[in-house]
Amino acid sequence: MADDRSFDFRSDNVAGVEPEVLAALTVAAQGSASSYGEDTITKRVEARLAELFAHDVTLFTVATGSAANALALAQLVPGWGSILCHREAHIATDECGAPEFYSSGAKLALLDGAHGKITAQTVAAYLARDSRSVHHVQPMAVSISQSTEAGTCYTPAEIAAIAEASGKHGLKFHMDGARFANALVSLGCSPAEATWQSGIDVLSFGITKNGAMAAEAVIFFDGAMAGDFAYRRKRGGHLFSKGRFVSAQFEAQLTDGLWLKLAGHANAMASRIGQALDSIANVSLLHPVEANELFVLMPDAVIDRLEAAGFRFYRWETAEGPCIRLVTAFDTEAAHADGLVAAIRTAAG
Amino acid sequence: MADDRSFDFRSDNVAGVEPEVLAALTVAAQGSASSYGEDTITKRVEARLAELFAHDVTLFTVATGSAANALALAQLVPGWGSILCHREAHIATDECGAPEFYSSGAKLALLDGAHGKITAQTVAAYLARDSRSVHHVQPMAVSISQSTEAGTCYTPAEIAAIAEASGKHGLKFHMDGARFANALVSLGCSPAEATWQSGIDVLSFGITKNGAMAAEAVIFFDGAMAGDFAYRRKRGGHLFSKGRFVSAQFEAQLTDGLWLKLAGHANAMASRIGQALDSIANVSLLHPVEANELFVLMPDAVIDRLEAAGFRFYRWETAEGPCIRLVTAFDTEAAHADGLVAAIRTAAG
Amino acid sequence: MADDRSFDFRSDNVAGVEPEVLAALTVAAQGSASSYGEDTITKRVEARLAELFAHDVTLFTVATGSAANALALAQLVPGWGSILCHREAHIATDECGAPEFYSSGAKLALLDGAHGKITAQTVAAYLARDSRSVHHVQPMAVSISQSTEAGTCYTPAEIAAIAEASGKHGLKFHMDGARFANALVSLGCSPAEATWQSGIDVLSFGITKNGAMAAEAVIFFDGAMAGDFAYRRKRGGHLFSKGRFVSAQFEAQLTDGLWLKLAGHANAMASRIGQALDSIANVSLLHPVEANELFVLMPDAVIDRLEAAGFRFYRWETAEGPCIRLVTAFDTEAAHADGLVAAIRTAAG
Amino acid sequence: MADDRSFDFRSDNVAGVEPEVLAALTVAAQGSASSYGEDTITKRVEARLAELFAHDVTLFTVATGSAANALALAQLVPGWGSILCHREAHIATDECGAPEFYSSGAKLALLDGAHGKITAQTVAAYLARDSRSVHHVQPMAVSISQSTEAGTCYTPAEIAAIAEASGKHGLKFHMDGARFANALVSLGCSPAEATWQSGIDVLSFGITKNGAMAAEAVIFFDGAMAGDFAYRRKRGGHLFSKGRFVSAQFEAQLTDGLWLKLAGHANAMASRIGQALDSIANVSLLHPVEANELFVLMPDAVIDRLEAAGFRFYRWETAEGPCIRLVTAFDTEAAHADGLVAAIRTAAG
Repeated sequence: MADDRSFDFRSDNVAGVEPEVLAALTVAAQGSASSYGEDTITKRVEARLAELFAHDVTLFTVATGSAANALALAQLVPGWGSILCHREAHIATDECGAPEFYSSGAKLALLDGAHGKITAQTVAAYLARDSRSVHHVQPMAVSISQSTEAGTCYTPAEIAAIAEASGKHGLKFHMDGARFANALVSLGCSPAEATWQSGIDVLSFGITKNGAMAAEAVIFFDGAMAGDFAYRRKRGGHLFSKGRFVSAQFEAQLTDGLWLKLAGHANAMASRIGQALDSIANVSLLHPVEANELFVLMPDAVIDRLEAAGFRFYRWETAEGPCIRLVTAFDTEAAHADGLVAAIRTAAG
Repeated sequence: MADDRSFDFRSDNVAGVEPEVLAALTVAAQGSASSYGEDTITKRVEARLAELFAHDVTLFTVATGSAANALALAQLVPGWGSILCHREAHIATDECGAPEFYSSGAKLALLDGAHGKITAQTVAAYLARDSRSVHHVQPMAVSISQSTEAGTCYTPAEIAAIAEASGKHGLKFHMDGARFANALVSLGCSPAEATWQSGIDVLSFGITKNGAMAAEAVIFFDGAMAGDFAYRRKRGGHLFSKGRFVSAQFEAQLTDGLWLKLAGHANAMASRIGQALDSIANVSLLHPVEANELFVLMPDAVIDRLEAAGFRFYRWETAEGPCIRLVTAFDTEAAHADGLVAAIRTAAG
Repeated sequence: MADDRSFDFRSDNVAGVEPEVLAALTVAAQGSASSYGEDTITKRVEARLAELFAHDVTLFTVATGSAANALALAQLVPGWGSILCHREAHIATDECGAPEFYSSGAKLALLDGAHGKITAQTVAAYLARDSRSVHHVQPMAVSISQSTEAGTCYTPAEIAAIAEASGKHGLKFHMDGARFANALVSLGCSPAEATWQSGIDVLSFGITKNGAMAAEAVIFFDGAMAGDFAYRRKRGGHLFSKGRFVSAQFEAQLTDGLWLKLAGHANAMASRIGQALDSIANVSLLHPVEANELFVLMPDAVIDRLEAAGFRFYRWETAEGPCIRLVTAFDTEAAHADGLVAAIRTAAG
Repeated sequence: MADDRSFDFRSDNVAGVEPEVLAALTVAAQGSASSYGEDTITKRVEARLAELFAHDVTLFTVATGSAANALALAQLVPGWGSILCHREAHIATDECGAPEFYSSGAKLALLDGAHGKITAQTVAAYLARDSRSVHHVQPMAVSISQSTEAGTCYTPAEIAAIAEASGKHGLKFHMDGARFANALVSLGCSPAEATWQSGIDVLSFGITKNGAMAAEAVIFFDGAMAGDFAYRRKRGGHLFSKGRFVSAQFEAQLTDGLWLKLAGHANAMASRIGQALDSIANVSLLHPVEANELFVLMPDAVIDRLEAAGFRFYRWETAEGPCIRLVTAFDTEAAHADGLVAAIRTAAG
């Protein structure tokens, strides 16, 4: 019934669930547990995250990335606020206005930037033009994706520079970490360095794309900033009655560094493909491959042949010409990657 | 780690996951599948539901009952609408204003009614007083819980009478079926009789409380009424990337009548407790036991002794005096039920 | 074209504009003035109000009472909050859900109370039952109407008692002063006594019903509580470009106590009618006449005859039987009042 | 008290009220009138507008342009919709997110275009890229300003072309006519040609900037499209109790073509200034002068000298260099215009 895994590079969310995560769900399925997040697994996960981030955390689990992002941003920004983000940010392009819905109509201010990244300079330039006039929504937060929608990563120094540029204007700082693990592995830095030490106030920490079933966390590094978030989550319909099952997925991933192993594997598969493409004519990479996504420029005819060969991926609009996006996952096998490369070589030949 | 199942009567959401459901998740965890509800399992479930309800259905899966209810009601009622429901309805008392949030501020009009049920008479009386004046929100929907928050069930005739009373004023009709299976088993009627044949337009069909992990469905019996619901769900953050895992829970439950077997068992356990309590002095039932919930009036001292004995349940405020709510589930064993009864007998003695 | 003033007792908003107010508008119509509330008249009005209330005030003018109330309440209460008010409060019954709209779906908790008034006791009783559970919206404000929708007035002592009962739970206190002047005249107390000295945090101070054209003010007695209200007003579309014309109406009314004279006259007319009705059989007052509204119980046949005689008023639903509401205004003449009384005497005879 | 009119070119909303409008308010101030828009003046205005537009109209008066625009757009577009407009449109830049607030979070899609105008081509190009995917908000309306924020006007042919490009995708078409009269006079076309005959569905027709006090109208050319707009207006707090006073302003302006005379005068004053500037070195017009606004590029030193001479205007950010905006109004005198030109000549000399 399921699609053939070896030909499917559409997204890391077409992948299934990693066995350790599944095992944890099976264990959690037994017996009674307090509902609505009052269970012991959730408490253990919060403690584990505090350890991992080397900082107190206030944790709210949800089950989709859009929920995590929209709820987090609504906590930071009222309806008359605006959120600075990259023009291609997931919150801007792929959430059907969830941030606007939850925030009662805040605006997203779309910034340009190479390879999916905004910079301290573009943020500063935007804020320099801003006015406190009552006629204008007021910039109140910045949001970045880590890794980005271009498959690149922000270095801690880049994050800290944005934090400085925006923080002096009082803006809060959100990170959409739907692929947070992929970025950490790529950067080789600690969770702390990538977040609060670089000025991040709130993190949407997703593991669904990394081999979980449906598990995302909104993590506040300043409990006071979380305020009434619990009510906000509840009335959004995002408080799970059997909350232990979201938390169990986190517990499995955070045990023995599983989350980093899975992301590391996905990254390695993307890197393997990217390096192999180097030697193929008519094919080039649009962005550096720093996580588990590749954007490959190739003639339309090549793309057509690849599809005809049964491969699945998304076509991407770019100013540079026809392009496809390829995403690897925790369960992408080397043979799948090599099969794809071979097929591209043939198609491009 | 988990709490002792045999002493826990707080809710059916403290129970875990039924083995067949877990098995289905394990199977679904393999291979690739289209994301965001485009997978084959979801398609099969929609077809299965159409068969089961003997009617075309438009299906939207979500993962919490509050999401199902709030999204469904927001689809039926704009901000200037009101929703008639029982004063003790879950949507009124336990969702922290989710219906108001999703509907941009619609009002709930709270009706009284014995044993958790509104009637065609109270609905008609309310609507008779209503005005079309621009100063007032306009009644646009009725919502009933099946089974109710009092553990009772609406008969198809009762539902049809409400549908007639409200339909003539153009109101839509929503059913909160968080415990839909329990009601069906209790009534001995078909899904069709309990819903569209009695005038229900939209059903929140929940199986989480019935042994699933997190799976609820919004079912429209008129596809036109669903309109842009898909966008509404998405921007609420309730469209799951790995949607197959919500659907797999439904598929498991809808196979070989598992959902009805599980609910039937829970009902039987409630009934077993209810009948046994009959012979205990100082203890009485507040409502008829028609599903898997019991509301038991007993002196405060008896309640205290029961808690001291390790039993877990919620205290309930009632005009009739001190009361506790007991909820049975798919995994409540006869021995657990008997143990509880024995403890009550001792405590009340 | 205009309706005959002498037969029209529908509301004080069917009255026109008092000459001094009109004269002020005519003066203000000349020359340039900074727009959006930056004009000198607005500044003078804020200073005048501070003097009048013997307290610093933060002033925001708007043009309708619903805007004043809904914006003020939204400032006090987030979507997961609730607002305690009388079941017959204007905010609950006659604003088509404006408070819910502006607050992103807060709930109104409807309290009963004789003669249109809630009490410290009912407030305390409600709050005693309240829970901090995430499943429930949280009581965050109380709102009272002064004078009430029953034409009665809260004494400063009654207000202070409510403030004490609710303030200890952290609730904010709003007063809907659409007929604030009528109450002040009736009570013989100062603006300060009736508001901040008795615990009011925010006042909707309306003069439209008192002879203005369209002028209401939201007055915060604690500037910090006003917060970002300016943005809230603007995005509600309630910041007037030619703001001087709203303020000019206030300036006219607040000069030489005009507002109190006008309200005093309206009250006197209501009182004149009320006293005269005393001697008419089959007719009785539902509430004490303490401001400019009368609720008069009379047989349907009498009401019909009164209508047939050309009088205009609203029929009211009451548990006590058929009833009409009569409202006097700044321009109700003694002859009008006497004509009405004579007509009632004839109709009831 | 008022600022010196002869030096004030900040906006047409710093002007006062034209005498005929004031006279109409004075007349309307007498006697009783049904409240909430049920008065006879409002009925006459609706009939007059139908005559003027040579088409049935459904009229809703409000008092601010932001209210008119935001309510109209919310009627056309749900939260998951987007509204195509010029990047500099008033709805995008100067309403503090009012359209987003009223529409529950719809997005504005910002299009570029010379001289403040979008074109059929840019609209078509945007819609060609659009997807029906559930992940994206859906384009549902176009909004243009007439005259534009650049002081230019759309010809009926340009409007019709946009209507054709967008209508084939099902988009509705809104016109922000805060300066509608100025455009009509400039174009020399009829109200019908400028609106419904060119494909406009809903018009925000403002007269506040044209010598009224506070009067705007939302005009639907298809009554069905107005739907429940009356409830939407009410719960936004924009239904005036003494509605006759908004309507009276319209009646005055629509009598004997006063509105067109006033706008024609303002346009003539702008034109007079524009032509005179032609002969001044170091000064140039950024946009053609087609209504009552001028955008004049001039060195910063010249701007400084002009301010030092007491003139008032807004500085504008442009890619072309330092710029000021000058706005004429119904009461700008030729001597004021000439005085300004002389001052610019001196400052630039």
